[in-house]
Amino acid sequence: MEIIFIPADEMKSVFAEILLKNGFQNRKAETCADIFVQNSLDGVISHGVNRFPRFIQYIRDGYVKPDAEPTLISSSGATEQWDGNLGPGPLNALFATERAMKLAEKNGIALVAMANTNHWMRGGTYGWNAAKKGFLFIGWTNTIANMPAWGAKDPRLGNNPLVIAVPYGNEAIVLDFAMSLYSWGKIETCRLNGEKLPFPGGYDRQGRLTDDPSEIIMTGRVLPAGYWKGSGLALLLDILATVISGGKPTLEITKQNAEYGLSQVFIAVNPENLFNYPSMENSVRLIIEDFKKSIPEVNNQHVRYPGEKALKTRKENLINGIPVNKQIWDTILNL
Amino acid sequence: MEIIFIPADEMKSVFAEILLKNGFQNRKAETCADIFVQNSLDGVISHGVNRFPRFIQYIRDGYVKPDAEPTLISSSGATEQWDGNLGPGPLNALFATERAMKLAEKNGIALVAMANTNHWMRGGTYGWNAAKKGFLFIGWTNTIANMPAWGAKDPRLGNNPLVIAVPYGNEAIVLDFAMSLYSWGKIETCRLNGEKLPFPGGYDRQGRLTDDPSEIIMTGRVLPAGYWKGSGLALLLDILATVISGGKPTLEITKQNAEYGLSQVFIAVNPENLFNYPSMENSVRLIIEDFKKSIPEVNNQHVRYPGEKALKTRKENLINGIPVNKQIWDTILNL
Repeated sequence: MEIIFIPADEMKSVFAEILLKNGFQNRKAETCADIFVQNSLDGVISHGVNRFPRFIQYIRDGYVKPDAEPTLISSSGATEQWDGNLGPGPLNALFATERAMKLAEKNGIALVAMANTNHWMRGGTYGWNAAKKGFLFIGWTNTIANMPAWGAKDPRLGNNPLVIAVPYGNEAIVLDFAMSLYSWGKIETCRLNGEKLPFPGGYDRQGRLTDDPSEIIMTGRVLPAGYWKGSGLALLLDILATVISGGKPTLEITKQNAEYGLSQVFIAVNPENLFNYPSMENSVRLIIEDFKKSIPEVNNQHVRYPGEKALKTRKENLINGIPVNKQIWDTILNL
Repeated sequence: MEIIFIPADEMKSVFAEILLKNGFQNRKAETCADIFVQNSLDGVISHGVNRFPRFIQYIRDGYVKPDAEPTLISSSGATEQWDGNLGPGPLNALFATERAMKLAEKNGIALVAMANTNHWMRGGTYGWNAAKKGFLFIGWTNTIANMPAWGAKDPRLGNNPLVIAVPYGNEAIVLDFAMSLYSWGKIETCRLNGEKLPFPGGYDRQGRLTDDPSEIIMTGRVLPAGYWKGSGLALLLDILATVISGGKPTLEITKQNAEYGLSQVFIAVNPENLFNYPSMENSVRLIIEDFKKSIPEVNNQHVRYPGEKALKTRKENLINGIPVNKQIWDTILNL
């Protein structure tokens, strides 16, 4: 596999141009291209550059409507429900994050739900966005069924990623995780590289836990993170996303021929009116400093807080360019 | 170990009488006794009858102030910050849950934070309470440091239980889980029974993952649920609880000689004003029905939604009485 390094600016103009050719208006093409580039810069290429061809395909297939705008369905106090009208997932999610921040400015906390939206790519994007603007953020999405419940064989749960973010200096602490221990992307990558998973991440054909990615791909039985805990959390996140947005649950999405029309939740908290706001930055710093004092299991492999690695990768990629599989980049240039 | 069965009513009067003797006023003694009985009825005896002697000890030691009332520190829109004044954890948590529901009636969503409070016993209690009154609920607490971060040897994280609850018919779906795969209570019980843990739940003296409870108790290295995922979530829940309440983080609580002065967060959503409220009950029912259709891994061992087992245990214990270790009951009768 040949790796080439694409500068962020170049990647952004390539993406924007393709989006313009595929029905996006100017400003939207810029914003959407930027999100795909940011995800790639932060090292999340599975939901950045590597996912871009499929995103374009979904537009061509009509699952993602490039010119659709979200419409307000219902509003009550600090909560709003929007219909995403099958618009581009990243644009709808960014819109919802910004609405939640706006509402939180007045109410302290705010809840914005988005029904009939599309894959938001990297959930962390919206956490970084909100936290860098000074807000606390909790958000999640449902997905197509891709994980069996704990104790079950057939996939009836989504892996429903959850994002939690807080400001940290000029940057942020951003937790972004799916309810399966490993993403299908990670499992596929290990299989291609002929590697085992670091820990058992699913079941083999004999129904035993295994770290063999080929077996897990054959059975389709990926393991929930924390066994019954990830399974329970996935179920509750789907129920909440469905109930709060009035949109589709995983079970309805799964009946379709592709993953579209998702339900998402965005909660923002404005810390500015908290009595302890002046000491907030210091509190977070002290917690992280204590966390970083942890005695590492392996010498010199210090523990990392969520988002720390993304920040490091971002800095490297801004200097060296974003590492991309040349074959994928060639595919993109031909879109 | 001799097990005796105590009817819920009898347990409640025994608890209430002891609480009255230990500084609780009438109504508070009733409510607090009721929470300990409900937890026991639902099968969570580790935070019910088995914990009651330690709760009384904490009162006698001065960590829990039986007559303290929460005081409002700050209020802004749909958010409130309270000081728990080291009052009884279950009473403070119930109060905060009720405040959150009250505020959510007006604002759709509400956030109530409680600093300087105490162990809330079973977090699920507040989820059941809110969901049975028709609210969606998300809440969490921090704890003393009792779990190493992922990749670390020394405990610097709390296992910070998270609760999510939604109404389900006249009952509720209640997820209530700590960030360690197993509680110290579960590990200790397995050790006493000479059993292995169902899955590796910590590290042995050689630094290897193990299912041997004795080794884990020796090293103190309990495993986060989902490895890096439970570790990251524990860290973020502590940061959010600290920042939102203005109270103590895990690192400060751990410097004390006992676990008191915790920080907690209570979020309630009132679904009544959502446009889809009329179909909410049906949506949840359809999701659960689909979930229950899962093909079980072991024949006839059907998957369970969070809270389903508690409901079954509650019904059994209401008929047969609550099973209690006679030695613990005798200790309680002598308090």
